Amino acid sequence: MTYCVSLLLNKGLVFMSDTRTNSGVDNVSTYRKMFTWSKPGERVITMLTAGNLATTQTLVSLLDERSKAPAERKPSLLEAPTMFQVASIVGETLREVIESTSPSGQSADSQFGATVILGGQVAPSDPRLFLIYPEGNFIEATEDTRFFQAGETKYGRPILVRAIDPEMSFEEAVKLLLVSFDSTIKANLSVGLPLDLQIYTKDSFAVGAERRFEWDDPYYQSISTSWGESLRTALKALPDYEL
Amino acid sequence: MTYCVSLLLNKGLVFMSDTRTNSGVDNVSTYRKMFTWSKPGERVITMLTAGNLATTQTLVSLLDERSKAPAERKPSLLEAPTMFQVASIVGETLREVIESTSPSGQSADSQFGATVILGGQVAPSDPRLFLIYPEGNFIEATEDTRFFQAGETKYGRPILVRAIDPEMSFEEAVKLLLVSFDSTIKANLSVGLPLDLQIYTKDSFAVGAERRFEWDDPYYQSISTSWGESLRTALKALPDYEL
Repeated sequence: MTYCVSLLLNKGLVFMSDTRTNSGVDNVSTYRKMFTWSKPGERVITMLTAGNLATTQTLVSLLDERSKAPAERKPSLLEAPTMFQVASIVGETLREVIESTSPSGQSADSQFGATVILGGQVAPSDPRLFLIYPEGNFIEATEDTRFFQAGETKYGRPILVRAIDPEMSFEEAVKLLLVSFDSTIKANLSVGLPLDLQIYTKDSFAVGAERRFEWDDPYYQSISTSWGESLRTALKALPDYEL
Repeated sequence: MTYCVSLLLNKGLVFMSDTRTNSGVDNVSTYRKMFTWSKPGERVITMLTAGNLATTQTLVSLLDERSKAPAERKPSLLEAPTMFQVASIVGETLREVIESTSPSGQSADSQFGATVILGGQVAPSDPRLFLIYPEGNFIEATEDTRFFQAGETKYGRPILVRAIDPEMSFEEAVKLLLVSFDSTIKANLSVGLPLDLQIYTKDSFAVGAERRFEWDDPYYQSISTSWGESLRTALKALPDYEL
């Protein structure tokens, strides 16, 4: 499994992904699930992947090769004029990868399936955030729904739904994401640290702060410890039920 | 879907279940999922059911008939000498019901599957709590794991894991359960009010407080509203991340 989240805030985009991959519980590895392409001053594109590792690695390699080889440069992530067209390219490539492996053709419940969260900004438009399905089609974050999750989404969802605020600062957003990841990590063995963080500031057209949180990271540890305490305190403060 | 939880506390047992059943999103009904058998002074047995409604209704009817018809009175829930034997009877009956409907025999992933949370006390032993699988086998709550969930378990789990305390009062336990249910109800359309509550006080050998929370219940409303606020406040109080 995997857990990836991206938030679309007024200040920009925040991405976080875990790094655990597993096939059963006795074949566990660490792989980065966050990938970035950029042309400083013009575009930054960041992708989080969830699903079959062979599929997502092939997807990334194909997208990479196609944006580097001059002859194959169109369609390329680095040339497409809008984020919508970037999402279409990623969707088509994802579909192509799954189709090439699945004997019965590409489908959502294929064991080779994968889901992609894609966010970024291409000048002169605003930042946009997409969730791309294994079929290659996608949905976009809007004012009503300002975040996407992929992988093991349920444990970490209640706090996101309750606390997300488009006006929040990046500092608050990182805190919120770490709480959501901590709830997931405590409940599902197949989601694990280290966690990758990337921040994109609106209209910067440059890759923002990047960070990897390891198990012993003091900030992660303090969030993980004090959140349990905070929850118990918050619960105590609610009006008691009268029998 | 469904959401059911039972806690094994030092003071006794607390049960809560939702009442929504659905087949698709356009065929929704309200059914009670909490069932109790008792012999005042000697035993109280409470069951929460999750899964195929035809299966769980047949299960309850069979258990009922067999404890009423004198000729069939053994094995019966009202005669078995221990909670372990009660759990065995429920497990065997559940297995039998699923087997009779599934053309290829009984199995966990049968569309006729169901899961049961069973708790209670048979004199002179202590209260015990079991989770019974569609295969008819079961596990028991222990000092390390003091609660069972069935149905849509993920959204409401983080708060249970963090806040359960064997010493907690029934008043605190009801509050904790309502918070866990509220997180689930907000996230999954197939879990819905009204909620049924039942409390069993250790060594009382009588059915304790029972209550149904409707949508407009003032206590449920106050928990649902103030919990969101409490979460946001708790999040704000955590140390901010420094970019």
